[in-house]
Amino acid sequence: MIRKIYDEALVNGKCYSNLHELCKNIGPRLSGSANAQKAVEWGKKLMESYGFDRVYLQEVMVPHWVRGEKEQAKIIDGNKEIPVPICALGMSIATPKEGITAGIIEVHSLKELDSLGETNIKGKIVFFNRPFDPRFIETGAAYGAAGDQRRAGPSAAAKYGAVGAIVRSLTEIIDDYPHTGSLAYTELKIPAAAISTKGADLLSSLLKSGNHNIKFYFKQSCQTLPDVLSYNVIGELKGTENPNRYITIGGHLDSWDLAEGASDDGTGVMQSLEVLRILKTMGYHPKNTIRAVFFMNEENGDKGGQKYAELAAKNKEEHLAAIETDEGGFTPRGFGFTGLSMASLQKINQTWQPLLEPYEVDRLTAGGGGTDIEPLKGAAPAVVLIGFRPDSQRYFDLHHSAKDVFENVNKRELELGSAGITALVYLIDQHGF
Amino acid sequence: MIRKIYDEALVNGKCYSNLHELCKNIGPRLSGSANAQKAVEWGKKLMESYGFDRVYLQEVMVPHWVRGEKEQAKIIDGNKEIPVPICALGMSIATPKEGITAGIIEVHSLKELDSLGETNIKGKIVFFNRPFDPRFIETGAAYGAAGDQRRAGPSAAAKYGAVGAIVRSLTEIIDDYPHTGSLAYTELKIPAAAISTKGADLLSSLLKSGNHNIKFYFKQSCQTLPDVLSYNVIGELKGTENPNRYITIGGHLDSWDLAEGASDDGTGVMQSLEVLRILKTMGYHPKNTIRAVFFMNEENGDKGGQKYAELAAKNKEEHLAAIETDEGGFTPRGFGFTGLSMASLQKINQTWQPLLEPYEVDRLTAGGGGTDIEPLKGAAPAVVLIGFRPDSQRYFDLHHSAKDVFENVNKRELELGSAGITALVYLIDQHGF
Repeated sequence: MIRKIYDEALVNGKCYSNLHELCKNIGPRLSGSANAQKAVEWGKKLMESYGFDRVYLQEVMVPHWVRGEKEQAKIIDGNKEIPVPICALGMSIATPKEGITAGIIEVHSLKELDSLGETNIKGKIVFFNRPFDPRFIETGAAYGAAGDQRRAGPSAAAKYGAVGAIVRSLTEIIDDYPHTGSLAYTELKIPAAAISTKGADLLSSLLKSGNHNIKFYFKQSCQTLPDVLSYNVIGELKGTENPNRYITIGGHLDSWDLAEGASDDGTGVMQSLEVLRILKTMGYHPKNTIRAVFFMNEENGDKGGQKYAELAAKNKEEHLAAIETDEGGFTPRGFGFTGLSMASLQKINQTWQPLLEPYEVDRLTAGGGGTDIEPLKGAAPAVVLIGFRPDSQRYFDLHHSAKDVFENVNKRELELGSAGITALVYLIDQHGF
Repeated sequence: MIRKIYDEALVNGKCYSNLHELCKNIGPRLSGSANAQKAVEWGKKLMESYGFDRVYLQEVMVPHWVRGEKEQAKIIDGNKEIPVPICALGMSIATPKEGITAGIIEVHSLKELDSLGETNIKGKIVFFNRPFDPRFIETGAAYGAAGDQRRAGPSAAAKYGAVGAIVRSLTEIIDDYPHTGSLAYTELKIPAAAISTKGADLLSSLLKSGNHNIKFYFKQSCQTLPDVLSYNVIGELKGTENPNRYITIGGHLDSWDLAEGASDDGTGVMQSLEVLRILKTMGYHPKNTIRAVFFMNEENGDKGGQKYAELAAKNKEEHLAAIETDEGGFTPRGFGFTGLSMASLQKINQTWQPLLEPYEVDRLTAGGGGTDIEPLKGAAPAVVLIGFRPDSQRYFDLHHSAKDVFENVNKRELELGSAGITALVYLIDQHGF
């Protein structure tokens, strides 16, 4: 069966051509945008074209943040002005129309910010410049370790009277592309933007040269508009034995606005759809209902994931497992499991691992899930949350930047992912945990 | 120790910047070319700059094939002429100056060729068009299964009176780039070229349309010049306990002429060098002599590998192991071992696998090696031959084509490979098999 799943994915796979349509005919699809609505309608039609047992939408109100005009920034070094690439962080407020010009101070952690205090920070722009730690093997761990600067940095700096925040892009690659992503304001809001890693290195070297007259200028016109009605898109293959017991596989349909959201998370939604298409095409009749979910609003609110869990509880749906694919369409390595006892994890490592080993998707480890399925954590009976784990090395080169385009997805890598996830869904459906 | 190896590779790695120099300052370096000689001299100087215990050259005579002018080809469909991208296969003879124009017949295997026989083939160009089988998980297996067309196809077609051979590029990706590579003539020689996969699909669809008046034209001016003196480049860290027992790690310095040979095999030679640099920088004193070898002439003759084995035998060098890295600088998955008993393989899977698992380079399997180290097979005492196994999905997208450039190498993937190989060398040096 697993061999047949792979043959279908590798010989007749539709994942890559579907992703091409999503990226090239629709493109960026930030929550609340016209493109996001287009993606919902296209996704529903596509699911319907495959003749699944049920295809429907789940209403959800989502934030509507817009970037506005292209941001501008420059380092002002005496009478020299050096433009640098920035982009507003998601959910940031705008600068005044004329922009902000202020002295700039570099910090590497929230702790360092605290130790500098109001004396050093008031009236300045805070430049958060802690790079990715290259020693992590998984780049996701480096992202996790650097992420507090983007999320908590702006409000933390505002507390000491900063007038703006500039955050080093969350990537290891050194280039000219700024990477956006959500910040999380507490009470105090100041405008915040990401700077490209090359821009950050330049700014840092100028600051280190001991020139204390360096100022920074930036201007952005982003704003948050009223919430908008949007949707999760859901398709189902009905379970023959347990129609109200679900195995859910999903990614998120929304993306950032700087590119096509190919790897984040076009690959994930198209793989989720492909799982159902493969099983349907093979004439497989699942014991449990298999559901593909295109979640809305993972990037700046997680409203789709929350709504899904809320309705699952309300409708008394029992979830056997929920799988998320939101780490790119790279070569599969395995899966991470949350909510599985050590005994059960050992058991699947004895029974399933040998079946998955020939396909090199057999790394079955503790811990894993995803933002969209996270709200299912409290469900009763408990849900096993599973994160699909592809190779992580290239993800943050692209993530949230203008480089996240279709051309940076490899067809075979993507298809191997679809097949690997389908194989896991099949094993769960047949054997449970 | 392994953690320290990774830290050195990921924080201070020189592999990526060295590869940049090789690709951008030297570039293509086919055996016998001026660039190949430049690469030898540059490689030796680079090794010397690291202060290894010994750096030297090994003389070897190599073939000197040159491509000549850019090849031309077109499909002639009545009075319509459609240009298609081709490149001469390595070691092919030229067409006559005016090119060859002839009818063309599509075949999918050498067996089909035999069944068609002289009646159908005489005076025609044979078009070998068996694609990669996408069902293989490892792309190297698909390459192996399709490779007889390129290697044996031309002389096999000549046997039945064919006047030329056109071979589908050995890649799964559908694009406009032809992929070169060596053919192996037996007695009969006819000009042979690779056609891009898009060109092959177009030609096949026109032939299938039932139009029997289709002809094919191609022209190439390649030739084989007299052999040239060249070199393997070797660096050593002297063994403290067994100076005449060797652990050799190598890749090949020569490359095809269509691009920079970044992934084939710039990544391999730069990783081999990096192994020694890392161990030297860490102040590690190996028990056995660790050798990095830049082999010459893997692509069209394997003379460097043969010379290395010949001199190893002559000098009574005992090789504990020889490792080859020639499958690209992609994320490491593990190593393949040839000449290791099942018991020894089980043992290292019990003892070394857990040490390598946190770095995800722990797939230690039977079978593996490489063209350059293959001639060591008959050595006494027996040598364990080891192939470094990175992720295989993207290699044949680039392999032997104009796309094999530095920009298609990922820094972290490359560095993780250097570190993984160094870790293995360390384990072999400490524990043997």
